[in-house]
Amino acid sequence: MQLADAIAARIFEVTRTARVSLHEPRLTGKELTYVADCIESGWVSSVGSYVDRFERELAAYTGAAHAVVVSNGTSGLQIALKLVGVETGDEVLIPALSFVATANAVSHCGAIPHFVDSEYASLGLSAPALDAYLADIAEVRGGECFNRRTGRRIAAVVPMHTFGHPVDMPALQALAERYAIEIVEDAAESLGSWIGDRHTGNFSRCAMLSFNGNKIVTTGGGGAIITNDAALAKRAKHLTTTAKVPHAWAFHHDEVGYNFRMPNLNAALGCAQLERIDGFLTAKRELTLRYASAFRDLPEVSLFVEREGTRANYWLQTLLLAPHLADQRDAVLAATNAAGQMTRPVWELLPTLPMYRDCEAMPLPIAQDLARRIINLPSSPHLVEAAP
Amino acid sequence: MQLADAIAARIFEVTRTARVSLHEPRLTGKELTYVADCIESGWVSSVGSYVDRFERELAAYTGAAHAVVVSNGTSGLQIALKLVGVETGDEVLIPALSFVATANAVSHCGAIPHFVDSEYASLGLSAPALDAYLADIAEVRGGECFNRRTGRRIAAVVPMHTFGHPVDMPALQALAERYAIEIVEDAAESLGSWIGDRHTGNFSRCAMLSFNGNKIVTTGGGGAIITNDAALAKRAKHLTTTAKVPHAWAFHHDEVGYNFRMPNLNAALGCAQLERIDGFLTAKRELTLRYASAFRDLPEVSLFVEREGTRANYWLQTLLLAPHLADQRDAVLAATNAAGQMTRPVWELLPTLPMYRDCEAMPLPIAQDLARRIINLPSSPHLVEAAP
Repeated sequence: MQLADAIAARIFEVTRTARVSLHEPRLTGKELTYVADCIESGWVSSVGSYVDRFERELAAYTGAAHAVVVSNGTSGLQIALKLVGVETGDEVLIPALSFVATANAVSHCGAIPHFVDSEYASLGLSAPALDAYLADIAEVRGGECFNRRTGRRIAAVVPMHTFGHPVDMPALQALAERYAIEIVEDAAESLGSWIGDRHTGNFSRCAMLSFNGNKIVTTGGGGAIITNDAALAKRAKHLTTTAKVPHAWAFHHDEVGYNFRMPNLNAALGCAQLERIDGFLTAKRELTLRYASAFRDLPEVSLFVEREGTRANYWLQTLLLAPHLADQRDAVLAATNAAGQMTRPVWELLPTLPMYRDCEAMPLPIAQDLARRIINLPSSPHLVEAAP
Repeated sequence: MQLADAIAARIFEVTRTARVSLHEPRLTGKELTYVADCIESGWVSSVGSYVDRFERELAAYTGAAHAVVVSNGTSGLQIALKLVGVETGDEVLIPALSFVATANAVSHCGAIPHFVDSEYASLGLSAPALDAYLADIAEVRGGECFNRRTGRRIAAVVPMHTFGHPVDMPALQALAERYAIEIVEDAAESLGSWIGDRHTGNFSRCAMLSFNGNKIVTTGGGGAIITNDAALAKRAKHLTTTAKVPHAWAFHHDEVGYNFRMPNLNAALGCAQLERIDGFLTAKRELTLRYASAFRDLPEVSLFVEREGTRANYWLQTLLLAPHLADQRDAVLAATNAAGQMTRPVWELLPTLPMYRDCEAMPLPIAQDLARRIINLPSSPHLVEAAP
């Protein structure tokens, strides 16, 4: 197949590697030094100096006042939703086009996902489409938003910054305020992504980050809740560490808590990774330019680039097939993967999964179109020789 | 205070250390080698050879057919309960005398803890007391057990092997079978504890292990589900890894899953730790003998030792104050901790915690008595010079 082969050849032009994965961590800084320090000191578990340090450094990097590290992004989002008041039986607005964890975190709160369409500009949740939809189905009573069709409260909206491309947060903030809906940013993919001079995650009362193995900075598995609200940060730490009340020896817990701690061993890895994030980001921008150059003579595809006013981390490089070629996506995936160049489609739309099929959803024409056309390309920082 | 000082002096006689903690990990084997291997190979995250190896070696060590590693014991117990069929609104029988995670895991399933008294022989759940209680409140209908008072189903019972001392599982198995209640062992504290020649965790369809930093074997933070049921093991892996359906590239998930993975980095630590468990167990038995010897001339206390037919891992060394001296517990805790010898009481009884105060409970005379009299002593394996 001509187009598929042309794409595979151009990816290889950039990667110059026979077998290349989608995204690999790069652990060639002080990762081993810090982890060895944990093992030699015996501090590998749920408290330790690297936990405190990683929290401080994440706060400093993102510009949030507080960061609370947790076991992973899903757990972080579940707790963040609870912190802003999401309760059993509430609806939470989330993008139809997201990783399944966004919906699972809502579900783990006992709440119900309600799916929102995307916009082409950011690949994320569309504030204008949501606005028009809410005008139709929502009503605000007593300072809370209700879905007129289901009678359920709409407690929160979760914008997800797809592949590191920021959602239009000022538009969403205005909308959420009008409808009395809390925002929790799913910034799992957007560490190092900015809107103007404000880091993603600072446009809501609290937000979640992820440090899974495939992310721009990894702790093996891990996540964080960031916030500018001191009381909320304190409660995030309390809830994620079994809600134990401090005491010299007594084991008293004052609410149903969680064991969502990040071990010191993993935080040590995170500290070393975060030291090098600027280099990773530079490498990823360079990689974007190389793909842009490689694909410039192929009008059947376009490389997705950051929109004006934002700075993306380019976590995953993204190719969009021309609309009339969407039916060739699987052939492209087959050819590129067969050629050793790992590519991936975007996630199946969440409302098509069996467990979310019966949830409410607005019309999803753009999410459906994007889901057919997105192809992610090999994106590891080490594909650029200057990477740290 | 004379008794408190006498106890502090005798602990010091054994520890011969000015400042000693309750339980510290010992990471002086291949821990650093294996963790360095993860970092050098880039395999630090949710899949990797140490995850597979740790699962194989845990299965081999415990004699269970399968082990599925997870992020921690609480998450492991939550999933184990779901696997045996616990649903929202069910009641789950658990010991009143346990760490809060046992109750939280039940609560995270949407189920309701129902508290059971202890027995002196094991410090764990009393099968005879539960038998008498169920005769009063339970009825079996259509192969399921119901609480006549609340109308709710009693779906499962969770024996917890306190400080590594096995509950009388044959007695509990007979009872659970008669009442059509599933058993899930909370073996968080009992890796290395046996009833006859059968390792704890093999007396129920599935069981949970913990590798928190304070446990006999640590992964920083972590746990496992062990089972002899292949289908259940497969579903445990599926549910704890986002319920993704295997495919060359598609992201399809077929139920609400969890991100409860143990990263490869943490599994590497676990592999190194598990290699040395026999040495840790030997050191702990030696430590028990030393405490027994140090306290033999003090009739106000008794050292808790394994009951006949069982082999405890002696994870935590346990002193029992004589019944008439229970009111001196806090003075003993204060004196010993002030003297740098870290001691701890047992957990506050779960039904006294605010979030579990309204749950059902049987009369708890023995749990209440034990809670006033237990003092845990410094228990690290390195307190014995021959430790590995």
